[in-house]
Amino acid sequence: MSTTNSLDVLIQALRRLPGVGVKSAQRMAFHLLQHDREGALALSRALSEAVGTVHHCARCHTFTEAEVCSTCLDPERDATRLCVVETPADQSAMERTGAFKGLYFVLMGRLSPLDGVGPKDIGLQKLMERATGGEVQEVILATNFNAEGEATAHVISEALKSRGVHVTRLARGVPVGSELEYVDLGTIAHALVDRR
Amino acid sequence: MSTTNSLDVLIQALRRLPGVGVKSAQRMAFHLLQHDREGALALSRALSEAVGTVHHCARCHTFTEAEVCSTCLDPERDATRLCVVETPADQSAMERTGAFKGLYFVLMGRLSPLDGVGPKDIGLQKLMERATGGEVQEVILATNFNAEGEATAHVISEALKSRGVHVTRLARGVPVGSELEYVDLGTIAHALVDRR
Ligand SMILES: [Zn+2]
Ligand SMILES: [Zn+2]
Repeated sequence: MSTTNSLDVLIQALRRLPGVGVKSAQRMAFHLLQHDREGALALSRALSEAVGTVHHCARCHTFTEAEVCSTCLDPERDATRLCVVETPADQSAMERTGAFKGLYFVLMGRLSPLDGVGPKDIGLQKLMERATGGEVQEVILATNFNAEGEATAHVISEALKSRGVHVTRLARGVPVGSELEYVDLGTIAHALVDRR
Repeated sequence: MSTTNSLDVLIQALRRLPGVGVKSAQRMAFHLLQHDREGALALSRALSEAVGTVHHCARCHTFTEAEVCSTCLDPERDATRLCVVETPADQSAMERTGAFKGLYFVLMGRLSPLDGVGPKDIGLQKLMERATGGEVQEVILATNFNAEGEATAHVISEALKSRGVHVTRLARGVPVGSELEYVDLGTIAHALVDRR
C-alpha cells in the first residue's frame, strides 16, 4: 500500500492512535478512502476543532470548552464532597450512576513513575489547595482499582490526611484489577454508598 | 465525557473508523487531547490531504495520486501477466514476495451480494476489457482463500474463460514451514489435488 505518499502519511498518522498497529491503520485508511471519504473529512474537521477548542477546566481539570466546566458551575452540586477520578471517562461513569451529587477533581492520568508521570502531572498541588480551601469536607478517592490507581490513591490519601482532610475511598465492591470505566453502574453505585 | 460538544463530535467521528466502538473512541480522543495534540493535528491534515489527492489508478484501480500509478507505468513489468487482487494491501503482500513481475488489477473489494457488493463495484466490466484487449495472455486470480474470495474468483474465472482468456489461480497448499499434522484437512486435501 505504498504507491502514494499521502496514503503512507495517513497510515502513519493513524498509527498514533492508541491500540492501532500497522495492519489496523492500513485497514482504516483503506476503509475511509474506499467507502467513507465523508467520514474521513468529518474526522479531520473534528480533530482540528477539538484541538482548537477543548481545554482543561480551571477548577477540576476535566475537558471543557469554557474557562470552567458546567459541572463545576452547577449551583445544585454539593461543594463539600470532592470526588477524585483519573479521567473524564471515569467521571462520566460516576455521573451515570446518579449516586454522586458533589464535585470532581480529574487527575487526567495516574501516578506512574516508570512512565515519568509524577505528582505535578496529576495536579496534586492544586488538589491539595482545593481540598484544604475550607469548602471541601470530604475527598472521595475514585481512582482505578489496579496497581497504579491504588498507588495514586495511597499517595493522595497520605498527603491529604497529613493536612487533616477527611479522605474516603470507593468501597472494594468494585472488582479488584478492573478499570472503572468498564464496571457496571450498579457496582459503582454500591461502592459509593459503602465508601470507607 | 460529555461536557464538551467538540469532544463528543470527535468521539462520534472516531467511531466511523472500522473496529472502533464507543469505548475505544473515548480512549483515542482522551489520548490525543491529553498526550498527543500534535498527533491529532497530523492526523487531521493527513486525512484531508489523502481525501484531496488519493484517487484510483485509471488502469489498475489501486490508490494513487497520479492519473496512472507507478506500477502500471513501469516499462520493466511484464504486461502479458495480470494479477487480480482484492485490495492494495494484498497487492503490497504480492509485491513483497518479489516473485511476480507482471501487472495488477485491484478489485478494491470482493463480491458480497449480502452487503450489496456486485460485479460493478469490483470493476468486472473494466477487467474484462483489459484482459481481452490483446496484451494480456494470462490472468492470475489472487483473491483471498475464504468464502467470498473464492466466490469472487469463481465469477471472474467463468466470465474470462467464456471470452477465451487463460485464467489461473494461486495454488492452494500447505503453508511453507508448517508441519503436516497441524495443517487443517481441507488444506491437505487441496494440496494433494493440486500436487505438481
Ligand atoms: Zn470543572
Ligand atoms: Zn495502476
